Amino acid sequence: MTDALQAPGSRRSFLASALAAGATAAPLLTGEIAHAAPAPAHPRRPTTEASRDEARWQICLGLARQLLLVGPNDEDLKLSYLRTLIDGGLPKTTSPKRVLIIGAGISGLVSAMLLKEAGHTVTVLEANGSRVGGRIKTFRRGPETPDAPFADPALYAEAGAMRIPDFHPLTLALVDKLKLKRRPFYNVDVMPGTGAIDTPPPAVTYRAFTGETWRNGPPNPDFVLPRQASNTWIHTNGAHVRRSQYSSDPKGVNRGFGWPDSLLGNTTHAVMESILAPVYDYYSDRVTGGGRKNKPFHEWVEGWARVLYDFDGYSMGRFLTEYAQLSDGVLEGVGTIENTTSRLPLGFLHSFLDATDISPTAGYWELEGGTATLPYALLPAVAEDVHMDRRVIRLEYRDSGRAGLDATHIGANGPKVWVRTVQETGGDHVPGSEIPGSFKDYVADVAIVTIPFSSLRHVEIAPRLSYKKRRAIIELHYDAATKVLLEFSRRWWEFTEDDWKRELDAIKPGLYQAYQDAAEPPAAHVFGGGSVSDNANRFMYHPSHPIGDSKGGVVLASYSWADDAVRWDSLDDDERYPYALRGMQEVYGKRIEAFYTGHGKTQSWLRNRYACGEAAVLTPYQLTQLHPAIGTPEGPLHFAGEHTSLKHAWIEGALESAVRAAMEVNAL
Amino acid sequence: MTDALQAPGSRRSFLASALAAGATAAPLLTGEIAHAAPAPAHPRRPTTEASRDEARWQICLGLARQLLLVGPNDEDLKLSYLRTLIDGGLPKTTSPKRVLIIGAGISGLVSAMLLKEAGHTVTVLEANGSRVGGRIKTFRRGPETPDAPFADPALYAEAGAMRIPDFHPLTLALVDKLKLKRRPFYNVDVMPGTGAIDTPPPAVTYRAFTGETWRNGPPNPDFVLPRQASNTWIHTNGAHVRRSQYSSDPKGVNRGFGWPDSLLGNTTHAVMESILAPVYDYYSDRVTGGGRKNKPFHEWVEGWARVLYDFDGYSMGRFLTEYAQLSDGVLEGVGTIENTTSRLPLGFLHSFLDATDISPTAGYWELEGGTATLPYALLPAVAEDVHMDRRVIRLEYRDSGRAGLDATHIGANGPKVWVRTVQETGGDHVPGSEIPGSFKDYVADVAIVTIPFSSLRHVEIAPRLSYKKRRAIIELHYDAATKVLLEFSRRWWEFTEDDWKRELDAIKPGLYQAYQDAAEPPAAHVFGGGSVSDNANRFMYHPSHPIGDSKGGVVLASYSWADDAVRWDSLDDDERYPYALRGMQEVYGKRIEAFYTGHGKTQSWLRNRYACGEAAVLTPYQLTQLHPAIGTPEGPLHFAGEHTSLKHAWIEGALESAVRAAMEVNAL
Repeated sequence: MTDALQAPGSRRSFLASALAAGATAAPLLTGEIAHAAPAPAHPRRPTTEASRDEARWQICLGLARQLLLVGPNDEDLKLSYLRTLIDGGLPKTTSPKRVLIIGAGISGLVSAMLLKEAGHTVTVLEANGSRVGGRIKTFRRGPETPDAPFADPALYAEAGAMRIPDFHPLTLALVDKLKLKRRPFYNVDVMPGTGAIDTPPPAVTYRAFTGETWRNGPPNPDFVLPRQASNTWIHTNGAHVRRSQYSSDPKGVNRGFGWPDSLLGNTTHAVMESILAPVYDYYSDRVTGGGRKNKPFHEWVEGWARVLYDFDGYSMGRFLTEYAQLSDGVLEGVGTIENTTSRLPLGFLHSFLDATDISPTAGYWELEGGTATLPYALLPAVAEDVHMDRRVIRLEYRDSGRAGLDATHIGANGPKVWVRTVQETGGDHVPGSEIPGSFKDYVADVAIVTIPFSSLRHVEIAPRLSYKKRRAIIELHYDAATKVLLEFSRRWWEFTEDDWKRELDAIKPGLYQAYQDAAEPPAAHVFGGGSVSDNANRFMYHPSHPIGDSKGGVVLASYSWADDAVRWDSLDDDERYPYALRGMQEVYGKRIEAFYTGHGKTQSWLRNRYACGEAAVLTPYQLTQLHPAIGTPEGPLHFAGEHTSLKHAWIEGALESAVRAAMEVNAL
Repeated sequence: MTDALQAPGSRRSFLASALAAGATAAPLLTGEIAHAAPAPAHPRRPTTEASRDEARWQICLGLARQLLLVGPNDEDLKLSYLRTLIDGGLPKTTSPKRVLIIGAGISGLVSAMLLKEAGHTVTVLEANGSRVGGRIKTFRRGPETPDAPFADPALYAEAGAMRIPDFHPLTLALVDKLKLKRRPFYNVDVMPGTGAIDTPPPAVTYRAFTGETWRNGPPNPDFVLPRQASNTWIHTNGAHVRRSQYSSDPKGVNRGFGWPDSLLGNTTHAVMESILAPVYDYYSDRVTGGGRKNKPFHEWVEGWARVLYDFDGYSMGRFLTEYAQLSDGVLEGVGTIENTTSRLPLGFLHSFLDATDISPTAGYWELEGGTATLPYALLPAVAEDVHMDRRVIRLEYRDSGRAGLDATHIGANGPKVWVRTVQETGGDHVPGSEIPGSFKDYVADVAIVTIPFSSLRHVEIAPRLSYKKRRAIIELHYDAATKVLLEFSRRWWEFTEDDWKRELDAIKPGLYQAYQDAAEPPAAHVFGGGSVSDNANRFMYHPSHPIGDSKGGVVLASYSWADDAVRWDSLDDDERYPYALRGMQEVYGKRIEAFYTGHGKTQSWLRNRYACGEAAVLTPYQLTQLHPAIGTPEGPLHFAGEHTSLKHAWIEGALESAVRAAMEVNAL
């Protein structure tokens, strides 16, 4: 791939032209700078077959097949993953291996479980001293945290993954198989008293692009989702309106961003959909009555490859400015409400893929008891194989095609993988030291490396991995994502004004009126869903359901990404709570403080020493330049984790990668 | 400006065309999306007068004048800043004001000093409990830190600003005026025994573009810089060569990045200069015998405006890929060695401006005793006016043109500025609370806000600032920068092999040979300068000078930016030292551990709760879209700090802004 990208082009490079024109450049170079195949520079002119660079096109075709899970014989890989993970497991091995799995996140646990069931010996190394699950983490009283995190010991809240979309069948089917209870997660607030969710939910159905259908149970049509209300707030530039008001009259909010009169009547969502439509057109067609239908198989795959070809070089900001030609104010309005502002310099395709995922029309699920119940339901199958509090600091391996440079613990025979770990929670984390007892070493025939590349950057690896893999470990961008959670003794967001009066005056007669005198916004009276603000909090989510008999609840007072999150990351954990409360008060009124229990929890994924970021969120050109090398094996080393998939930041991507890596190892 | 950028264009927008072609988009929009004026899409075709967007052009002209410090009457503003700060101060005021200055970094201290001398009453609010200077910070035994940071109490090292370029006259002249001792900082290692630096250094000379020359003393020609040696290491892809070797034969290192044969013989510096030459050509001409000369005044200013117009939309990655058409491997090689890799998604112009600053041919200076001696030399003039441990959490002001919305502490008469602060090191940082005693409030006639916009994001401001200023506070990108410093009891980097043998065997006979048996790289034997590696440490700098009689020294074991720095930021401070030592050992040999004292210091500027980042490092389009609004006053609020200048991250930019803001206030 390296060679292909570096092949001298038929065009002369700009440098050669510059030299010829005399407009140079001291010192003079020898030779021409070989050209890369950049993204097309002309807005709205898709690259044609005649004009495209063949090497780059092949990369994009490969990426499109990976994205769509098209196997080498055009089979649907998702189907085979479902059959492996949910139905039958891996074929039993006739050649059992010692498999070392680095990281007890969801991908590490799943690949360990599958390989163990197939007859291999597995060892999972986890750096955390007390917790498995990686970026699936619930602040709760559980096996990993015996102390209750909130004043009400029944309450819990998500530090990481919090919602599972309808269209992630591996995750949902795994949840069902483990007999965990799932219930709707309300991305948009709902009308109380509507729907019927106390019956079993519909089983998971997957329709493969080959025409086959997979399901794990009956459709359960008695289960009915409640109706959406959209009564949460949009709070920007001093405007304060409910989302439903914004949908019917977006002018006030849009005017705050200085939109031109001609566009004032459109919602940000409508603008975003219009902007993205020409990209959708690459691989799908509109159907009568709304909606879209994928193009026929080959056109669909090639359409996605053309999307990758034409847009991988675009940041979100460049796309909105140059391709969609948005003015500054329209760009900011869309960005603020649709959550793209903080990611403007990051890759357009990440946001594009996500925009099709986090949509108000999609259904979402959450796990009763918290998302952490998922990894902890997997744990018993491999509990004795998981070694906690073991951070890997050095990894050596034997690969016949590679010089054994520096791999001092690997001989010509014997184990192919050697790993050195340190214990951190015991306090003896001295990776540079030779103090005996600090280390524990492991050997194996094969390894699956599941930790983020941001974390792998601090692991010494010998011999050197391939050039492209090393570049990916050095450069793959991981985004910041930060949550600030606040506990309240009452679910005030569900209150009517009458509820407010009753509950405040119960604390102290006259308290309701005292707050009213300072001009409070009206009672939110919302169930689930979330508000958006241009203050530092940015996105605020209410819990979708009460927990047990608790009258209180934990609000996600701030959920932010990228630079929005980094503004919080500079503050210490405990500092964030008063600021987050203040930001919520700006949107919901000062009186909410009456129910704040003084307990908060916060998670900065960028500051997490083992995650080193929320997820792989690629910058322009990283998909085509780095991604193809990320998941490929290197000798006895295999790679899994969300970053090796093309569903970055989702459990589903981690699961796809885990099954894929387990299949690779089992096939050895 | 907002209106201008949003004016509907003469071209129909892509959306209108899409609608017309039927290739749309559900839901349909009303109106057209007004177009922005994007960066030109064609590589190597500068925008012409005929094709450019007039509104954007005017913005770029204004930015160019700010960048070049051209005043309203084409006067040289640097000259007036020098005359104000160094020579005569501000004119004495006939209308003394109460001035509140937020932040006791270098810009806050300088504007306070100037305004106080002019007859105003100043109050400086500083959030830190024990330290002034902001991002000028020295790990040292000093007034701010009575405990020695290293085992050898004589030693100190820089957490922040560490080098002052020759071409920053305000900074150097201020240093001289305060009678601080400056000496060369060796960006490139030097030959011992050459040069003569124990005599007074040449005075500061500034040649204005108007032809005038300013100087603060004699040329002192006896002062001679030592000769450069370039013997530090380049350690990439397993190659390990001295920079001097790389200059004479770059093939081995370049091959590691997979460069095409035709380019192998060029250094990364030569490639970078060739790439940038067409941009230099916008505003300067090559002269016979090498070097460049600025074009005549108006062409020079317009040339810079054209640079801003054509390139503000470019990230570094886009520039290298699309404009320079570098192949992946050449891009990575240049990026790794010239330090642009981690900043690929950030604005090209930031790196472009910096590339002309941090150059091996420029001279640099450092302050004996540490850069912190600079703010502490300024402090006595305003010591009683600086209120430490006062973090601003709310700012209200009166502006006749603006609704007084929410500004509950500002009346129609009386003080125009009101500020609420909390004390943090005392432990009572409860910004959302109304507990009396937590707060201390200040009033004034005018304020200068010098804190970073990343930090200002957490300050409530009422009434709302202008739309553009708010966008800048929300979005202005601040980069990560992280330093890891390690103390050694010997300056082993200066050692010859004989020195190594003597010193190691003095610890334990045979120790030298024991290390040799493990195949150590040769002794570095370098004085000052630094090495570059593709491991996590990235850039390593040796101290330029011994300190007192100490046999030891503190090495900057890792200096990194952006994603390179974020990889370190995920680790806790204490965790970084063993990893940084290990990374140095990879480059300099295992034996260096023999002299590690076990003491380290580290600074993550992104994790610093008051700085919230290293400096403003803008993303594409932020210069033209956000910067014009950053430094403009809003009613009684004035703004200073490096982010308001166009010398981001430099003391010189902070000083320019401080003098400018003080002049503004004094002229009221």
